[in-house]
Amino acid sequence: MKFNIKKQSFYKALSSVGRAASTHSPLPILSGIKFELRDDALTLIASDSNISIKEVLYANDENKLNVYEEGEVVLESRYILEAVRKLDSDFIDFEIIDGALTRISGNKAEYNINGSKAELYPTIDFTKPTKEFKMPGFKLSEVIQQTAFVCSTSEDRPIFTGVNFKADGNTMNCVATDSYRLAKKSIDLPTPMDFNICIPAVNLYEVSKTISDNKDVHIAVSDKLVQFYVDSTLIQSRLIDGLFPDVNRLIPAEYGFELTVNSHDMISAIDRSSFLKSDGYWTVKLEASNEGVLISSKSQEIGSSEEILKPIDYIGGNLKISFSGRYMIEALKSFKTDTVKILFVGEMQAFILKNPEDDSIVQLVLPVRTFD
Amino acid sequence: MKFNIKKQSFYKALSSVGRAASTHSPLPILSGIKFELRDDALTLIASDSNISIKEVLYANDENKLNVYEEGEVVLESRYILEAVRKLDSDFIDFEIIDGALTRISGNKAEYNINGSKAELYPTIDFTKPTKEFKMPGFKLSEVIQQTAFVCSTSEDRPIFTGVNFKADGNTMNCVATDSYRLAKKSIDLPTPMDFNICIPAVNLYEVSKTISDNKDVHIAVSDKLVQFYVDSTLIQSRLIDGLFPDVNRLIPAEYGFELTVNSHDMISAIDRSSFLKSDGYWTVKLEASNEGVLISSKSQEIGSSEEILKPIDYIGGNLKISFSGRYMIEALKSFKTDTVKILFVGEMQAFILKNPEDDSIVQLVLPVRTFD
Repeated sequence: MKFNIKKQSFYKALSSVGRAASTHSPLPILSGIKFELRDDALTLIASDSNISIKEVLYANDENKLNVYEEGEVVLESRYILEAVRKLDSDFIDFEIIDGALTRISGNKAEYNINGSKAELYPTIDFTKPTKEFKMPGFKLSEVIQQTAFVCSTSEDRPIFTGVNFKADGNTMNCVATDSYRLAKKSIDLPTPMDFNICIPAVNLYEVSKTISDNKDVHIAVSDKLVQFYVDSTLIQSRLIDGLFPDVNRLIPAEYGFELTVNSHDMISAIDRSSFLKSDGYWTVKLEASNEGVLISSKSQEIGSSEEILKPIDYIGGNLKISFSGRYMIEALKSFKTDTVKILFVGEMQAFILKNPEDDSIVQLVLPVRTFD
Repeated sequence: MKFNIKKQSFYKALSSVGRAASTHSPLPILSGIKFELRDDALTLIASDSNISIKEVLYANDENKLNVYEEGEVVLESRYILEAVRKLDSDFIDFEIIDGALTRISGNKAEYNINGSKAELYPTIDFTKPTKEFKMPGFKLSEVIQQTAFVCSTSEDRPIFTGVNFKADGNTMNCVATDSYRLAKKSIDLPTPMDFNICIPAVNLYEVSKTISDNKDVHIAVSDKLVQFYVDSTLIQSRLIDGLFPDVNRLIPAEYGFELTVNSHDMISAIDRSSFLKSDGYWTVKLEASNEGVLISSKSQEIGSSEEILKPIDYIGGNLKISFSGRYMIEALKSFKTDTVKILFVGEMQAFILKNPEDDSIVQLVLPVRTFD
């Protein structure tokens, strides 16, 4: 195995694939990247059985890949990445010199890295499922950014660690919840589809790192896995087993109170009370009336805070409701818009946040019971 | 106790003092900052018994301190710092409203923070020792930057966790060692002094954060403590007990081999082999002869690296010596100069690094024995 390639293209592909290499897998070889060199292309593969990434570099004018001798090898991800990054050279020479011992060189420096034989690497099935559709990169980015942050990080209920993608005809609903809050985003599909899958949030974050805003992402779905095709990169994620609960009935349809705020003002006001948090958590009380809106917070141990918020508009009578400061800030931030509408049913009822100009996204937050 | 002050000046003083507040002291009140308000000045004090910082803000045009009512209180450092930082206001109102309950407000927001009575705070003696001298800020910065990194971080031999400052007449020698390497910096004193103290490296780092390059630092020394006066800030550090070993005899006076290198080239060459490190440590072999200089490194597990270094000059015969890559990089970096001279006695002897244009600083590194 022997080739020469532009350092920049090689390093970019290595970093992209390297994200899937496992650092603490029971199978040590999974901490490596598999290199497959054929006549016209270099294929890089890494996987931790949860997520697998494949990158195919066809020889072209950008990467200047020159293949001298086909072959295969597996190299430890962090060593090959650091070696290539540190080489002070525009081009990298890569050559197996003995068994799996691989020489990487450029300019004055030369590294020999102990690799493993490619036969030892488990076969990863990258067969494309038949259900397939495409989406603009920026749209998929938005879906992930507006839903995945809601997912639970605890493995107590695995189904809540993923985002539910449910397609029914030309609509796809993407829903995430950790049972204290919920995000729901609706997407129009170009062709009718039919699937109901739950994708781990951590894998969606990896996908969003790879997406280019102005390019289409091709998504292929089976009942076992999902594939995201972005340029020369294929990201394959396992799905979370189990039935995602039907959450539509949780989103209230009628409201008694309607508060319209400048999102930045409200985020700042809540953030200012965050010095009262303990373990990252603090409860904020909102008191709204026709006279104004008061934001306050209290901690037995530390002290208290209060401030007056000037809303854009408020319709409704007297309302007093408490919620997690962090959940409210994250919900407000997800809209990336100046104006947000908060719709309340009543004092101990779940409330929702909406963008007045975009009905596709709803954030729901459960209130917190306080005793004062 | 009641005052009003410019947020920026207040926050700056709080952050400076807050660095000494202890987060895990057995005495909980030491996690606080003590506020003492008198007619014309606000004094802030924090201490963790290892380091104490005092900041005196006299009312002036910059801080716009307005004193309405004298008084004292202790507030938890992290809460008051975060509260003041987050207040969206140019001026801060500070007032004890009940016992030790303190109100901090500005613009629309208002915080009440539970404090502690000032009487509960231990008395810290800031009496100035009689031995005193001054030094330009940039000079003291340089001393710290060129020596403290060598100190040991292990408490096995406490004396090695500090820098030895030894004044004898008009010369002060500042020495640090962890028994594997050593740094020695000589300073001319404006007046003859006589002391021999060892200051904890961690405290010196705090001092260097406070120093302004173009202002003098006044240093007062006793056999118990050292004080650094920087503008309105006083930093007081305990000393490390015990006798610092005499290291002068360790620095060889004659050399058989003299290698002059471009410091950046040598740092890059050694850094390129750092992917071979495990636990932050890797051994680098240098082979010099009249033909050239070869830098190589080897790890049984990972692989090997080698590259040719073009020296500026080399005088001496064949030399083969191994050393810690990290120690060598840190020693080279401490000079902040393009050219560094490395002087070797022989294969298994300590060697030194010098700046050809500045004799005041010497770095010494012990070689590592290798078996190949």
